[in-house]
Amino acid sequence: MTSSDDKLSGEDRLIARYFKPLATAAGAFGLTDDAAVIAPPPGHELVVTTDGLIAGVHFFEGEEAGHVARKAFRVNLSDLVAKGALPVGYLLSLALPKQIDDAWLRLFADALQDEGDKCSCPLYGGDTDRTPGPLSASITMFGSVPRGAMVRRAGAKPGDLVFVTGSIGDAALGLALRQGANWKLSDAERDHLLSRYRLPRVRLAMAEILRTHASAAMDVSDGLAGDLAKLCRVSQVATDVDVTRVPLSDAAKAVTAADPAMLEAALTGGDDYEIVCTVPPGKAESLRAAAKAADIAPTQIGTIAAGEGVRFLAGGQPLDFKRAAFSHF
Amino acid sequence: MTSSDDKLSGEDRLIARYFKPLATAAGAFGLTDDAAVIAPPPGHELVVTTDGLIAGVHFFEGEEAGHVARKAFRVNLSDLVAKGALPVGYLLSLALPKQIDDAWLRLFADALQDEGDKCSCPLYGGDTDRTPGPLSASITMFGSVPRGAMVRRAGAKPGDLVFVTGSIGDAALGLALRQGANWKLSDAERDHLLSRYRLPRVRLAMAEILRTHASAAMDVSDGLAGDLAKLCRVSQVATDVDVTRVPLSDAAKAVTAADPAMLEAALTGGDDYEIVCTVPPGKAESLRAAAKAADIAPTQIGTIAAGEGVRFLAGGQPLDFKRAAFSHF
Repeated sequence: MTSSDDKLSGEDRLIARYFKPLATAAGAFGLTDDAAVIAPPPGHELVVTTDGLIAGVHFFEGEEAGHVARKAFRVNLSDLVAKGALPVGYLLSLALPKQIDDAWLRLFADALQDEGDKCSCPLYGGDTDRTPGPLSASITMFGSVPRGAMVRRAGAKPGDLVFVTGSIGDAALGLALRQGANWKLSDAERDHLLSRYRLPRVRLAMAEILRTHASAAMDVSDGLAGDLAKLCRVSQVATDVDVTRVPLSDAAKAVTAADPAMLEAALTGGDDYEIVCTVPPGKAESLRAAAKAADIAPTQIGTIAAGEGVRFLAGGQPLDFKRAAFSHF
Repeated sequence: MTSSDDKLSGEDRLIARYFKPLATAAGAFGLTDDAAVIAPPPGHELVVTTDGLIAGVHFFEGEEAGHVARKAFRVNLSDLVAKGALPVGYLLSLALPKQIDDAWLRLFADALQDEGDKCSCPLYGGDTDRTPGPLSASITMFGSVPRGAMVRRAGAKPGDLVFVTGSIGDAALGLALRQGANWKLSDAERDHLLSRYRLPRVRLAMAEILRTHASAAMDVSDGLAGDLAKLCRVSQVATDVDVTRVPLSDAAKAVTAADPAMLEAALTGGDDYEIVCTVPPGKAESLRAAAKAADIAPTQIGTIAAGEGVRFLAGGQPLDFKRAAFSHF
């Protein structure tokens, strides 16, 4: 404890020691005030989202502090990017059980600082409490878009092409591995699936690409099947997806080849943190080129039609999922 | 369950049923998107604050759903008002244990709607999760101020007068009553203290009054002694407070007359949700008049001086508090 720490109460000391260095924006007032001031650049407006993680619900008890911090940060960043927004800053709400010590907080704060530095997204404030329950870390993140330019879920039109980025289902299969699934996989395949569950990767470059190309978009956090159904429901359109077109990693292909029933887990499990979007046909080539330049591979998985409902087709027959989307409720 | 509910997963259904009616702002998109768009009026900027309540920590297990909702809302509104900001909207993060049922959610949502309606502060979004731990309700609230006009904690100058609104210590004494303190009080006095602990009252009119009069302000949430010390520390000034000038309710006067040791609890306990502010001497009369017109009684408790540190004096001798401010850490 430093001598200047002596004057502060427990919560203030914790904030001054671990989180003040992350609060570099002028409007954060060095975390010495009750509130922060945040303003988007001229001509822009703020996009806000909030998402939290609870130990034992969203990550395994005992997960490394740095991974908890990075996942809490990235699940929010993923939402902003899918809306075409660039990050501006965030608030952090922590509920800490008694066993959380200084070493844990140091690792947590350092990882958060690293995440924020990588995308110019500093801490603006927050709230820290003791809890008799599990650890929880919740972030509210602010992004900016030119006025009126947020990419909505609503907006898909008949004829638009449906794209997803990266590969689908890895995180759900990684979770199944953590829970004891015993598939014959190479070490590299196992590591790939486990790491996709453990930590989302977010491609910041997609923000601008979506804003200039997509008619609708969202991040895939509760399973491709359910999330695409949400996008189509609010856009009041329909689509059919041939499951052979859904991009799977080599590891996911190995799992679903050995155990075809796992395809449903891949399509309906959560935590992909890829992006599903719809693009007018005239912009499809430009989207592919822009994504490729950013080292991102978008795959067309379907075409938007008039009507209602999303079907995933295997051999021309609609799959009947036990549950369409992941939900803790 | 309605037929349109049938298509939704558990979390979406819960949001559509209880919280969508609260999301009346255009930028909330009826809670059908992953993010909201929020913009302050022209010439204004956003003030943001976040504060959460955890069952068993910030309120008693089994507290009525409506009171939990109102307290979660008001502790955030209190922060905004103390910064001179008018509320614009809020995000809600709920972590719900399994035993929370539809009746609880109905009461919770109705109370929140009532709070929001009373100050034109609609819901913009949020996050809902199951938790194996205690119930928690966390709110991030947005307010607006003319650009650069947020009232800071920093800003108090030697010669400024120190005011507090309302009465101090009622909530701390109400908490002591809940925990079994057995003072001889009338029923009305008991009810007054208990209700002050249970539910903050926030005076919206103070936002404008502070913005046009105060050099520094904050809400008193962790005890007057500690909070005034924080304001003076960040303003780099000092003050002495004669404890006989601190406004006490009749109930608090009855308690401290019977048990003088409770004065420390009144001055250092949390949950007052009054405002402490500093005002240049030339603006003091105008502040008093404006507050009086809004039916608020500010009391001058001291004068800011050069130097460092806050002392509470009884009979000219500084009180030595066991702890200066409330902290869960």
